[in-house]
This record gives sequence, structure tokens and C-alpha cells, in this order.
Amino acid sequence: MSILVVGSVALDTVETPFGRAEDALGGSATYFTAAASFFTRVQVVGVVGTDFPRGGIEFLESRNADLAGLTHRPGKSFRWSGAYSFDLNSRETLDTQLGVFSDFEAHIPEAFRDAEWVFLGNIDPTLQLDVLNQVRRPRFVACDTMNFWIEGKRDELLALLGRVDMILLNDSEARELSGDHNLFRAAKWIQARGPRFVVIKKGEHGAILFSPSSVFFAPGYPLEEVFDPTGAGDSFAGGLMGSLAMSGSLEEADLRRAVVYGSAMGSFAVERFSIQRFENLQIQEIMDRIHQFRDMMVFELPLPVNLNV
Amino acid sequence: MSILVVGSVALDTVETPFGRAEDALGGSATYFTAAASFFTRVQVVGVVGTDFPRGGIEFLESRNADLAGLTHRPGKSFRWSGAYSFDLNSRETLDTQLGVFSDFEAHIPEAFRDAEWVFLGNIDPTLQLDVLNQVRRPRFVACDTMNFWIEGKRDELLALLGRVDMILLNDSEARELSGDHNLFRAAKWIQARGPRFVVIKKGEHGAILFSPSSVFFAPGYPLEEVFDPTGAGDSFAGGLMGSLAMSGSLEEADLRRAVVYGSAMGSFAVERFSIQRFENLQIQEIMDRIHQFRDMMVFELPLPVNLNV
Repeated sequence: MSILVVGSVALDTVETPFGRAEDALGGSATYFTAAASFFTRVQVVGVVGTDFPRGGIEFLESRNADLAGLTHRPGKSFRWSGAYSFDLNSRETLDTQLGVFSDFEAHIPEAFRDAEWVFLGNIDPTLQLDVLNQVRRPRFVACDTMNFWIEGKRDELLALLGRVDMILLNDSEARELSGDHNLFRAAKWIQARGPRFVVIKKGEHGAILFSPSSVFFAPGYPLEEVFDPTGAGDSFAGGLMGSLAMSGSLEEADLRRAVVYGSAMGSFAVERFSIQRFENLQIQEIMDRIHQFRDMMVFELPLPVNLNV
Repeated sequence: MSILVVGSVALDTVETPFGRAEDALGGSATYFTAAASFFTRVQVVGVVGTDFPRGGIEFLESRNADLAGLTHRPGKSFRWSGAYSFDLNSRETLDTQLGVFSDFEAHIPEAFRDAEWVFLGNIDPTLQLDVLNQVRRPRFVACDTMNFWIEGKRDELLALLGRVDMILLNDSEARELSGDHNLFRAAKWIQARGPRFVVIKKGEHGAILFSPSSVFFAPGYPLEEVFDPTGAGDSFAGGLMGSLAMSGSLEEADLRRAVVYGSAMGSFAVERFSIQRFENLQIQEIMDRIHQFRDMMVFELPLPVNLNV
């Protein structure tokens, strides 16, 4: 029940109102692995350059990740640099340097090709398809994407949609992909193109799981301090896929619980710079947070009533 | 267990992408009454002019409202005119004519002064305080407000906060009132100034109830078509206060259920122009929607686990 993830393993330089982190460990596959590894083993597919710090590798190893698919290439690692607004609700990309990622070709190690659970992180849909073609019989495939691909690689992305079980995307991406401002119609539009499950992430407003015949809402965890939003979405995906793979089941109840695990892991990610919060995170803290989510969502139905007038 | 409400009883001219309604029945007290009257009797305090249509009065009477506090004055009724953006997420006020509301002084009929449940609709905080001073021993007082009063009558609003049990306001108002962009800190700031309960309404993103020692999230109802958002907040307040008064209790469970009733009534309000949706709304439809909310919020906790790594 290990999970194969493909995505960036990167160095981020991030400015927030609380400070600055330079060349910190980042990337979609990194955050995903950090979160998912609390639930199951993760097989990482990606590429780093010769400048990639030993500490980054050691962190992934400490999370028991299988790094047989992480290639080391001459050149620079993928670097992203961004600055967040004072309220952390928007960010500006200051610089992106693809480095060794610019001609990345995913070669999935033979030992990974029987993966049952696959997460295609936010990379070029052509690469996502390429990875998927190398996996023999996946049981559950989820993907992420972003506006850049929705605009620039729409056909490839639509081809990918026909082959995944779930897509995770944020609200503005769902609107742009479907061309519909209403999220509920947007989700149906996307479901009609392939994925049975659509998860729309709304940041502080939580996340919505659209299943074939139901809708589930998870609130955003009420954080009084958001330190660094970078990686929240990938950590969300890691918690979701990790707990789903751990359950080994795809019942509606498993999907819903997985979305709450995803919300919890995303909420941990933003409490520190980079993956720092996952370095000392305790399992009991995860369980406590899941119970807090439940406490925030429970209400008693009325007696079978007696309404007035 | 009737509720006293003070607010506007108005005529609205509304433009949405779906059409236009001219001089339609509106106002905070009207929407509140339309929603709350499904649960309990409503005592209305307000003023209308000689131009107010007989049909408006008949609607309120059909909802079994007690109109002893609704005065008729020479002059024009309060009129508001607004236009919504194509996605219905923002609106522009085209015109506001206070009419007989400009020198409104609330005289609470003797029969209303023993009201236990009081809702102070979105009017000048000075008027809200004036109404409150005329009620002898209210058991539960809630108020609404808006940016206009937060900016122009801040001292009066803060004085009011010290005397209410609950305030309902939307997210931008909570941020402006507290001066804090973080909603969870903003709610604590407001609670520290008086109200035990703060309800922050977030439109399509749902609502949050802050109690003295817990937080409760109700999602927005997944409407594929929002016809006219006017009155959603007042209908929310009506469902909340109405169901709370019906329960006759202020336990946490009652408050939470009331927020879900509020969300349900707000979601009905936006399905038609003006108060039209409430004209034919059936109690079974309300109950069905409450159960739908429950279905959208339920998840099973994991077994006491066995997390990996």
C-alpha cells in the first residue's frame, strides 16, 4: 500500500510577514512525502541537481521514503522564490528556475511500476501522462494541476482527466478549467471529463469533496497564525492519499475521512517554514486534530418536529 | 417565545444576471420575519410610508407576524436599489432613499416590551440601543451591523456590543471591526467586547459560530443557481433566531443547530427574487435541507490507530 508520487523536489526562497527562508526544502513531491509518510511508505520520482543539500535527502530518508526514483543530475535543482502578502492570502512568484527539471524525463524504476496508489503532483500534464503510462495497474490515481497548465496545456490536461480517479485543485483553478464561476457546476463539469472524485481546495475556507453522488465539506482549520502557506496543497494531498492508501478502501466513508486527514496535514504544513512542522510532528497531534475537526462539524438534528405556523 | 425584530421594511429594486425586480418587498425586518416565522411568532418594529403596497403587509400577515410595531407614516418607504456582478459575489448600491426611515424613532409597543428574544437588524447602532433600552428583560439579544456603521458609528456600536449576546456579521465586517485580517483572532477580539457568541457569515463559504469555548462550521449550501443574494443574511438571522427561540434553550447544541437552520433559510432566500421563495416554502423542505447539511458534514473517525512509520 505504498504510494508513488511524481513531482518537484526543490529549494524555495520564501518571504512572509514573519520572516524569510532561503533555499529551504520544498517542492510538491517533498511536501507530499512529508505528509503521506505518516500513513504509508512513499516512492518518490523526481530529480535534483548537484547543489541539492544532503539535509534534504536526509529528511526524506528520515520519513522512510523510497528514493530509488529520485535521480541526481549535473546542474542546479529546481528553485522557486515567492513573497506573500501581509494577510497571506495572495503571493507573488519572484523567480522560477527549472534547472535540472527543465528536461526531466520520468523513468519509473521497475520496482515502482506495480504501484497501486499514484499521485501525480503539479507538473506538466505531458509528464503526468508519461508517468501514468509506466505504471501497470494502478488502483487509484490522483492528480494536481495549476493555472499555468490549464492555460498552456489544456488538451493534455483533458487527456489526463480521462485517466485519473481524482483531481485536486483550488477554487480559482476549478473555475478556470470549467469556465464556470459556480463551483458546484464546475465540479460536475470536471467529473464529466473523467475523475469520479473532485476535491476543490479553498484555503482558509476549507475543502469540498465531490463524489459521484454526494458532496462533503471540510472546514479550514482555525489557525490564528499562518506562518508560511507554501506546500499546504501538497501536504493536503499527502494526508489524503496517505490515509486512503492506509485504509486500503475506496468507500465514501474512506474518502471523507481522507479529506479531513488532508485538511489536518495541510494545516500543520503552514505552521512553520518549509517542512519544519513535519520534522517533529507526533501521531497523537494528528489524531487530536482529526478529533478537533469532528468537534467543529458536529450538530444534533432536531426532533421530528413541530415547526410552528 | 416570540421574537422582537427591529429593522427596515423596504422596497428593493434589484438587478441580477437573471433579471430585474422593481420595488420588490425587501428590508432586513422583512426577510428576518419571512424566515423566522416558520419557527415562532415575530413582532415587527419598523416604519413604512404611504406608498407601501398592501401586498407587502399581506405577506407579513400571512406569516402570522404581529405588526403592532410597524408604523405607517406620511412619505415614501425606504428604498434600496442595487446591481449584482455576473458571478453574484459583489454588488453595487445604485441608490438608497431613506424616506420615512430618515427620522425613524422606534417606539416599542407595550405588548412587545417583555420580549425574551430580540433581533436588532442592520440599522444605526444608536437606534439599536434605543430599542434595547425599551425592552425590559430580554433573555437573548442578537444584532447585525455593516461597514457603514463600523466606520461611522464605531463608539455607539462598541457600546451596543457590550449589551448583546450575539453578533452576526460577514467576514469583511469582522475584519474591519477588529482591525485583524485573521478571522479567528477577529472573533476573539469581538467576543472580548461583549457578545458571547459571534457568527461570521462567509457567503458561499458558509458560516462560523464562535462560542465561549468552541468553534462550529456550517458549510454554504451547494446551490448551482443563485438567483438573487439580497436578504440572505437577514434570512440567515431569521432561521437562527427562530429555531433558537423555538428550542427555548441556549445550550451549545441549540446554538449549532440554529446556525444550520440559519444557513438553510439563507439558502432558500437566494433561490428567488425578494421573499418569493418563502411564500410557498414547505416545512418538509426545511427539514430535508437540514438533513442535507448533516449529510454534507458527517465523517467517521478512524479506528484508534495504527498509524504507520
